[in-house]
Amino acid sequence: MLAQADLAVRCSEVRLQTERLCEGLSAEDCALQSMPDASPLKWHLAHTTWFFETFILDRHAAGYRPFRPEFRYLYNSYYNAVGEQYPRAQRGLISRPGLEEVRAFRAQVNDALQQLLAGEPLPAGALALIELGLNHEQQHQELMLTDFKHLLSLNPLAPAYRAAQPATGAEAAPLAWTAFEGGVVEIGHDRSGFSFDNETPRHRQHLAPFELASRPVTNGEYLAFVEDGGYRRAEFWLSEGWAMVGAQHWESPIYWRKVDGAWREFTLRGLEPLAAARPVAHISHFEADAYAHWAARLHGATRLPTEFEWEVAAVGAPVAGVFVESGSLHPQPSPAGELAALFGDVWEWTLSSYAPYPGFRPVAGAVGEYNGKFMSNQYVLRGGSCATPRSHVRASYRNFFPSHARWQFSGLRLARDPG
Amino acid sequence: MLAQADLAVRCSEVRLQTERLCEGLSAEDCALQSMPDASPLKWHLAHTTWFFETFILDRHAAGYRPFRPEFRYLYNSYYNAVGEQYPRAQRGLISRPGLEEVRAFRAQVNDALQQLLAGEPLPAGALALIELGLNHEQQHQELMLTDFKHLLSLNPLAPAYRAAQPATGAEAAPLAWTAFEGGVVEIGHDRSGFSFDNETPRHRQHLAPFELASRPVTNGEYLAFVEDGGYRRAEFWLSEGWAMVGAQHWESPIYWRKVDGAWREFTLRGLEPLAAARPVAHISHFEADAYAHWAARLHGATRLPTEFEWEVAAVGAPVAGVFVESGSLHPQPSPAGELAALFGDVWEWTLSSYAPYPGFRPVAGAVGEYNGKFMSNQYVLRGGSCATPRSHVRASYRNFFPSHARWQFSGLRLARDPG
Amino acid sequence: MLAQADLAVRCSEVRLQTERLCEGLSAEDCALQSMPDASPLKWHLAHTTWFFETFILDRHAAGYRPFRPEFRYLYNSYYNAVGEQYPRAQRGLISRPGLEEVRAFRAQVNDALQQLLAGEPLPAGALALIELGLNHEQQHQELMLTDFKHLLSLNPLAPAYRAAQPATGAEAAPLAWTAFEGGVVEIGHDRSGFSFDNETPRHRQHLAPFELASRPVTNGEYLAFVEDGGYRRAEFWLSEGWAMVGAQHWESPIYWRKVDGAWREFTLRGLEPLAAARPVAHISHFEADAYAHWAARLHGATRLPTEFEWEVAAVGAPVAGVFVESGSLHPQPSPAGELAALFGDVWEWTLSSYAPYPGFRPVAGAVGEYNGKFMSNQYVLRGGSCATPRSHVRASYRNFFPSHARWQFSGLRLARDPG
Amino acid sequence: MLAQADLAVRCSEVRLQTERLCEGLSAEDCALQSMPDASPLKWHLAHTTWFFETFILDRHAAGYRPFRPEFRYLYNSYYNAVGEQYPRAQRGLISRPGLEEVRAFRAQVNDALQQLLAGEPLPAGALALIELGLNHEQQHQELMLTDFKHLLSLNPLAPAYRAAQPATGAEAAPLAWTAFEGGVVEIGHDRSGFSFDNETPRHRQHLAPFELASRPVTNGEYLAFVEDGGYRRAEFWLSEGWAMVGAQHWESPIYWRKVDGAWREFTLRGLEPLAAARPVAHISHFEADAYAHWAARLHGATRLPTEFEWEVAAVGAPVAGVFVESGSLHPQPSPAGELAALFGDVWEWTLSSYAPYPGFRPVAGAVGEYNGKFMSNQYVLRGGSCATPRSHVRASYRNFFPSHARWQFSGLRLARDPG
Repeated sequence: MLAQADLAVRCSEVRLQTERLCEGLSAEDCALQSMPDASPLKWHLAHTTWFFETFILDRHAAGYRPFRPEFRYLYNSYYNAVGEQYPRAQRGLISRPGLEEVRAFRAQVNDALQQLLAGEPLPAGALALIELGLNHEQQHQELMLTDFKHLLSLNPLAPAYRAAQPATGAEAAPLAWTAFEGGVVEIGHDRSGFSFDNETPRHRQHLAPFELASRPVTNGEYLAFVEDGGYRRAEFWLSEGWAMVGAQHWESPIYWRKVDGAWREFTLRGLEPLAAARPVAHISHFEADAYAHWAARLHGATRLPTEFEWEVAAVGAPVAGVFVESGSLHPQPSPAGELAALFGDVWEWTLSSYAPYPGFRPVAGAVGEYNGKFMSNQYVLRGGSCATPRSHVRASYRNFFPSHARWQFSGLRLARDPG
Repeated sequence: MLAQADLAVRCSEVRLQTERLCEGLSAEDCALQSMPDASPLKWHLAHTTWFFETFILDRHAAGYRPFRPEFRYLYNSYYNAVGEQYPRAQRGLISRPGLEEVRAFRAQVNDALQQLLAGEPLPAGALALIELGLNHEQQHQELMLTDFKHLLSLNPLAPAYRAAQPATGAEAAPLAWTAFEGGVVEIGHDRSGFSFDNETPRHRQHLAPFELASRPVTNGEYLAFVEDGGYRRAEFWLSEGWAMVGAQHWESPIYWRKVDGAWREFTLRGLEPLAAARPVAHISHFEADAYAHWAARLHGATRLPTEFEWEVAAVGAPVAGVFVESGSLHPQPSPAGELAALFGDVWEWTLSSYAPYPGFRPVAGAVGEYNGKFMSNQYVLRGGSCATPRSHVRASYRNFFPSHARWQFSGLRLARDPG
Repeated sequence: MLAQADLAVRCSEVRLQTERLCEGLSAEDCALQSMPDASPLKWHLAHTTWFFETFILDRHAAGYRPFRPEFRYLYNSYYNAVGEQYPRAQRGLISRPGLEEVRAFRAQVNDALQQLLAGEPLPAGALALIELGLNHEQQHQELMLTDFKHLLSLNPLAPAYRAAQPATGAEAAPLAWTAFEGGVVEIGHDRSGFSFDNETPRHRQHLAPFELASRPVTNGEYLAFVEDGGYRRAEFWLSEGWAMVGAQHWESPIYWRKVDGAWREFTLRGLEPLAAARPVAHISHFEADAYAHWAARLHGATRLPTEFEWEVAAVGAPVAGVFVESGSLHPQPSPAGELAALFGDVWEWTLSSYAPYPGFRPVAGAVGEYNGKFMSNQYVLRGGSCATPRSHVRASYRNFFPSHARWQFSGLRLARDPG
Repeated sequence: MLAQADLAVRCSEVRLQTERLCEGLSAEDCALQSMPDASPLKWHLAHTTWFFETFILDRHAAGYRPFRPEFRYLYNSYYNAVGEQYPRAQRGLISRPGLEEVRAFRAQVNDALQQLLAGEPLPAGALALIELGLNHEQQHQELMLTDFKHLLSLNPLAPAYRAAQPATGAEAAPLAWTAFEGGVVEIGHDRSGFSFDNETPRHRQHLAPFELASRPVTNGEYLAFVEDGGYRRAEFWLSEGWAMVGAQHWESPIYWRKVDGAWREFTLRGLEPLAAARPVAHISHFEADAYAHWAARLHGATRLPTEFEWEVAAVGAPVAGVFVESGSLHPQPSPAGELAALFGDVWEWTLSSYAPYPGFRPVAGAVGEYNGKFMSNQYVLRGGSCATPRSHVRASYRNFFPSHARWQFSGLRLARDPG
């Protein structure tokens, strides 16, 4: 656990970064909600602040007065132990408080947090909750980018979040495979530094031998699937995925668009020509799985890796790749080399349903609702993306979304069974 | 038809009034959409401007260049003859153009309109379209208030559009009845001044003898219906209305709330104690009809009036009552006297389905879509409301909404068959 | 009102006819429900019997014991005054009572009715209710045919209710027009014989001059509309109808099918080649209205007639045409002559919303729910169809369905304003 | 694999058993569909026959002529490789073919199968497909009972499938725990006899030490959860489960009903008093999981077992318990003893998402769609139920349903982590 003084510095940095993400955006940009799964930026600004006010300041800062008591309800996301919640699907109906008032809310809480951290030593539980709050805020930083990207994508004027950048022109390295022997392995966080409860306890899994691709699947490779009728041929798809293709009229990844016969991709920097060398992003678990089935014709018994296979491959690898700090805002062509781009660029879907590890216990108190109650009908993604803060991920990190979710920077890396 | 110079003055006034309605509101206030039936204020600002750019400037202002060509699609409401329309239910997903850009759009169009009107005499058709555009804009002024009220009503903080005002303390006059003989009457606009096409042609109807109440139903009277189990007793309701009561869990008019045992009403000036003397507002056609059935125990064979009965009573009456110019923003207790408050305060639901008058012809061109294509499954309201510009209504004016619509300032006046 | 002895005979005839409609059908045929708007044949058999048990036998037959008390709930359609109702949309989930038990229910009630009618003179109110019950049963006879046709139409094997018959080969007579002067007319039932309450009171309407087509629109004429892009051109449609075309993917009348490039029509006698000379049937009010707009290019200011115009034309005309007694089970080419086929063949949509006549009072008691509570968002059809018993209709008869309803034998006859 | 002659005997037995399930039922009973997830009995009769006609007779029986070619489409469940499928949700709209015709279809296929099996030796692939077809038919036998139970449960008359039987009066044995050491274990079918592809390949898993309850949770135990507010307290529920409780108004297992203050349970033998000693049945995965969380107050760290833990406990245990052959049609009180009632009575929900085993390959051909494409968003159940044929289950058998499914005989057995 970080020392109290280090935590103060980190708190200041993380909270500031959240606000930087909104630089250059209008109050309108920050107020709208594109779908129930996504939230307005203003809500993210307020909810991450609510977390500290509710779980830290109210309990540990003597004499602290809530910024506005109604926010206890308005900005509670899903903590039943804290009380009722304002309905998620209606977060885009709140014009007041306005952006400026939410910023004032942030400022009051920031000040009170710094004052608290500069004061008497806090109990370990409080420090742990602050650290959790900062990691929580980093998760919302990523959601701010993906939620806002989704909002902009629905605007027929195709506006950009940040100015366009010249393409790198890099090529994708050829696909290669790394073999793993399997056997009994240790999985889960090793308790060095912060982790979420869902990464624990560390435990054993038995793996069969497997191989892992050297890099994520590229747009170019995925385009071959599309052009081979991938979205019109049931044989590659899970039954539920195939039903979704039909019901939602899926024909390509969510942000691909065919304009005048040429494929383009909507990005945070506007509509760009589809770059073949970049990792494919914004695909659902269903699409990732279908691609893996299709790719068997090229590479043998391909499939998605399990989260354990991924973790075994990633343990010890440097946390290198394209993160939010790069300013790229889009995944970039993977460098050559073994097991490149495990971290950053795109979250990699795995075959693993999101489930508790053997012996899992949620943390005590309301924050016990953080992870455990979502372990149902979701699939695990690993490795972080171009929208993730670099300090936020690690080999044992488990992200999770429903099978149909497409608005994250989600891609895939192939695995296969040895021949 | 107004002379060209008079039209220039009026154009300036009406367009300015639209902007005044947004005074004091934030960009966020103007960007959000509360339901598919309602639109963001920013959309109203833009769409009313689109009307003039599309139907006047593009055709009659030599050298006029559209503010932004994409707006042709983005701000088209429902004119198929003009082209495709951006989906109505997604008007709240547009953060860009921002409010400032929409204001610049208004300014450019305002300037061009004034220049056009100050120049060469325009053909009669163009002048008629400008006058239509101004009446169109007045309709949107009323919708701006009702749409924004709906948005604010969904905010758990119950914010106010304008500051609260002290209640008047006025009492409602006792209910009295005026008898009409019926017979063959002339209905429809008499061609003196502007009218919409749906008020024409003037034609004959035969009416049976009827009686009309001296004023709209009050909150106090409606409360007696509520407290008599009005929303729990099927016997008063149309079948479709009763299904709606169950499905939507209706228990009172949409903006009534029982707080700590006391009835309150959400208004544009915030949450206020329910004022018994004020006309009941924001009820659907179903509720108006159910009340009229319930009231038979008090007043004989009560029912809603037909639109023709209402018009016969209103012809020749002064257009007096509470309009938007009063600044009241809420209906007020009706004065004593025969047939009070026919105009203003609340739109009065009628028994009449919205249908074409005998011999009706929509006007030629795209604006022929203005009224005629909506003559299906809607009911007529008459008389204007506290959100209507006084200059906008007249005895022959026909407003219309679906039976379930509740977000307008809609109330009722009882009619009855002679004993 | 029919004398008690005559009523006994009629009761026997009508009840028998209901059962004849099920001849040759299996228990399965009689148990299924194709959509919430339609009911299983078995339900019709039971509900029409419930009517007599509930409203007549329970009240007037001393010592009568209900066949099975649970049927009071199970077969109540929509009479809130009688009690709760089994949900309409679930009528197809009842395998028990089986068809044989429902037949036994009918037999018990038939016997008790005959015994009652053969006994002491009944009060006038009871006789009136029995006559209402017989007319009610005739309405259900028509629904039995249309509901069952809808069920069969969804079966990919396209089974027939009755064996195919050779086509007549008759041609449609050319379209001609009959002019009416209008003025003040008497509308509504003249109290000679039975009528429903919705046909009363007889009252005055003022009509403008109008013209009425000599016969209903034919398949051939409607096909020209379809082939002229009628279902792809917004300009002909009411706004709500156009939305329905898009949402439901309407491309032709509901039972038309293009098979190998040729239009066919699903009928109660199976899939047949589309016969150009027959009246178009199974169209919604939206489609009828759109056709009338489209036809203006051929015939001047065409539109749907109002129900009053239709009634004025029909008063005094013989109730001749193709009714259920013909065994045709499909509308047939109209004979030549003025105002042919007003009765029978197809119900004719009118421009008139279903509304109470001036001075309308529902009948007292639970059967007051029969008509009045449905006077909302429905449109009136006149004249009866090939599925209507001839004795059931008259010039003042008002049928009504929602705008989108297509499963009735509903067509249209054009009206127009004089040149 | 069974020898050809043995297969002929077995084929005869299994096919006959399917028909016995319909004994005493009416054609109506067999035609109705209660929800999209369930199918009419008639459909089950036909679809299981379709399987043999399509996969065996068409390919291997020289000169075989399909009973009716349209059945290829009508009775295909979900095999895209075979062609289009009649929509699942509309299986209850087919009155023709009637039950008798479907029985004739069965008879023709039965005869042809017996003839085929009595003839020349068939290739191994054909024999394997026949054996698969028989196991497939056994699965449908269970669904016939659960689908029909669901249909009857929606009938307000609460009819019974079979006559009531006197209760046994047996008490439930006290709950005890069996400890397992864990470590690396072998999971999956050992290739002795038939298995589905989803039970293969046999592979290794590592298990932590765990304990398993001696018997399934009883109605009495589950009732304590209900009465402790289990359905009103969010803290026990997965987030998605809690949303379901609210949206579907769940208050108890699906077939429990509180009648006059006493709990009763709808069974295939009608509505019975809730028997405390019987295993709780017809609960969803969400309810099973919530109960396991609630039970922690009584038993320590309780949870659902994984499917691997269950299999380790079940390997070697006799396949004893209440199966369909018992005629009980409802789970019965578990006998005392270690790990009682692992097989039969109720399917036991596990913590395990339905996923492919390492190295899984679907079988070749259209039947490869049998299992693999459903490995998504479903959870595994183990052990069989009182509606399962005894010969159908084994320790490695994997059943699977979505988390919300409640209409199967699904219950739970607690597991826990050692103290």
